[in-house]
Amino acid sequence: MSRSISILGATGSVGTSTLDLIRRDAKDWRVVALTANCNVAELAALAKEFRAEIAVVADESCLNDLRAALDGSGIEAAGGKRALCEAAARPVDITVAAIVGCAGLGPVMAAIEQGGTIALANKEALVSAGEVMTAAVAKHGAMLLPVDSEHNAIFQCLEGGRIEDVRWITLTASGGPLRTVEDLSAVTPEQAVAHPNWDMGAKISVDSATMFNKGLELIEAHHLFPVGLDRIRIVVHPQSVIHSMVEYRDGSTLAQLGPSDMRVPIASCLAWPQRMDTPCEPLDLPAIGELGFFQPDEQRFPATRLAREAAEAGGAAPAVLNAANEVAVAAFLDRKIPFSRISLLVERVLTEGNLPDAPRSLDEVLMVDDASRKRATEMLELA
Amino acid sequence: MSRSISILGATGSVGTSTLDLIRRDAKDWRVVALTANCNVAELAALAKEFRAEIAVVADESCLNDLRAALDGSGIEAAGGKRALCEAAARPVDITVAAIVGCAGLGPVMAAIEQGGTIALANKEALVSAGEVMTAAVAKHGAMLLPVDSEHNAIFQCLEGGRIEDVRWITLTASGGPLRTVEDLSAVTPEQAVAHPNWDMGAKISVDSATMFNKGLELIEAHHLFPVGLDRIRIVVHPQSVIHSMVEYRDGSTLAQLGPSDMRVPIASCLAWPQRMDTPCEPLDLPAIGELGFFQPDEQRFPATRLAREAAEAGGAAPAVLNAANEVAVAAFLDRKIPFSRISLLVERVLTEGNLPDAPRSLDEVLMVDDASRKRATEMLELA
Repeated sequence: MSRSISILGATGSVGTSTLDLIRRDAKDWRVVALTANCNVAELAALAKEFRAEIAVVADESCLNDLRAALDGSGIEAAGGKRALCEAAARPVDITVAAIVGCAGLGPVMAAIEQGGTIALANKEALVSAGEVMTAAVAKHGAMLLPVDSEHNAIFQCLEGGRIEDVRWITLTASGGPLRTVEDLSAVTPEQAVAHPNWDMGAKISVDSATMFNKGLELIEAHHLFPVGLDRIRIVVHPQSVIHSMVEYRDGSTLAQLGPSDMRVPIASCLAWPQRMDTPCEPLDLPAIGELGFFQPDEQRFPATRLAREAAEAGGAAPAVLNAANEVAVAAFLDRKIPFSRISLLVERVLTEGNLPDAPRSLDEVLMVDDASRKRATEMLELA
Repeated sequence: MSRSISILGATGSVGTSTLDLIRRDAKDWRVVALTANCNVAELAALAKEFRAEIAVVADESCLNDLRAALDGSGIEAAGGKRALCEAAARPVDITVAAIVGCAGLGPVMAAIEQGGTIALANKEALVSAGEVMTAAVAKHGAMLLPVDSEHNAIFQCLEGGRIEDVRWITLTASGGPLRTVEDLSAVTPEQAVAHPNWDMGAKISVDSATMFNKGLELIEAHHLFPVGLDRIRIVVHPQSVIHSMVEYRDGSTLAQLGPSDMRVPIASCLAWPQRMDTPCEPLDLPAIGELGFFQPDEQRFPATRLAREAAEAGGAAPAVLNAANEVAVAAFLDRKIPFSRISLLVERVLTEGNLPDAPRSLDEVLMVDDASRKRATEMLELA
């Protein structure tokens, strides 16, 4: 029996990894919607290969090219934000939500509202819109499966257990490329984006270097797994072999380990509650040799502390933190501010002046996001 | 609602750890039978403290002392092998089977026949009587929960999963105190019993030094978890923090970690499928610092190869291996043979001459055990 799937962000890293897995058992899957921002050539090729019902470009100016590329294929073409949300609202068994940034929020909410299973790879969704989104999940009976390797690990470690028996959730952090760099003030964008274990985009690589990535994951974990923030901790584990852990109240800790290959957590979402084959390398711990563990250094990398404070404050604070961080990272990548100013700017935006009211809808989340970006940009220019 | 429990081997290490946990929630438990070999003073004290229904000494010559110690308490006293089996046969929710050696086989079988849950800490039960025992478990609808830290870890890692999705089961081995000792021929009993991570008896410590302990666990794992022997592997992990692992076919590995404290796996059995509090230390990986992994060296430590061959041969072979090993370890502890002769003797007993027929009953298992001990003793004396 085939299962239906839509992939929001089909040409990105998570999208292509998902399609790589589906390709291996293509007859088990019926692809409904594939979306991209404006990568028409790849989107059209994937839509044809997987016989998608509809292909959507978020950037409406690319729609004519998409129509031309799909001409005669029988595949619907659509463009723009509204079309994206309409495609995400088509009923499917599983939606892979892999659009990066706040642009993905609307389509994720549309997918949640159809009540299916959402494999969530969009960090901003839970960081900025956490309470709005978890309320929608509950209301529409949707199921959230986390794609992020850390949260997917925690999800797996909780499968045979009960959340009320959890003593600790431990998020592991690689510590990023700068963990052992002494002078952080002289760090260049090139150094910051050289992640030791994962091949990722520039923004997320800088987030890994500042530890904001782990801070955002802390906020996500808080929304995904209902344990108190004081029971979620971070341990630096440079090899990133253990993806995260859950300690139960009897002293048993369950950990999920695996290769640095996103196809592992994606496969775990696609096949859940069962398992599917992947071509990923088996784990060879003797070849890896040693796994190391350190306490995070929040003096040098204040991001996790800031994220914890934002999560504790709740309301708009996580969305403000996320927006301010995006502005700061862009400024760093543009060589406008030094590395160490990223977390300083985020802290200033969070603590100077009043926070916006807690957003109660997706529109309000986007307003907070927008206002916080403007405020962070002003602060950048003033400094 | 209280649960009923019997502890076979109540004065040993697993027995007292179990009672330590029960003591913390005494009103949740109703203790039926407590047994010991001949430690009358401790057995009587425990029986009184926990208001047991019956206390049994396996050694009938100690029964009069037990009767005297329990006089006026209202607790039944009994002695001898038959009384032990009769006490084990009393219906309870959970039986902790912690009698060491083949002496525990009869009582374990009696407990299985009453169809409850058996927390199994008796290695010999599954090694020597594996097929006989698993057949009895199936016939009587009993549930086996492994207490051994490795098998308990595997059990936990399989809780949310399906055995048909398992790619690898990885038993971790500390490697014992001799892993880095160059000249094994000069090893003394004192060196061999100095286990790095666990405080154990002399026999099991020597088994850890020879790696026979891990070999026996390989055979146990093969009976407990129905995957092919070619899917069960051993990795040396000197810190013994990861107690064992399960790799699924999607590339996800689940591992169970914890302190070297038997109360953790015992608690997991007592509370299964839920969890209970224990006073065990939380896992502090940054304090531990590093976890190392090595391939086992089967040239220097042939025990795991011998165990794998015995498991593959099936029938009487595992019981023969276990009996020969016990004779060889006793001879080594008596300084009658050097360390390196232990595995040589086991291999000779397994490979020279015909193996006995596959035992089909507990009595036949005990006959194989007895005959193999005699044969191993003869070979020792001839050499």
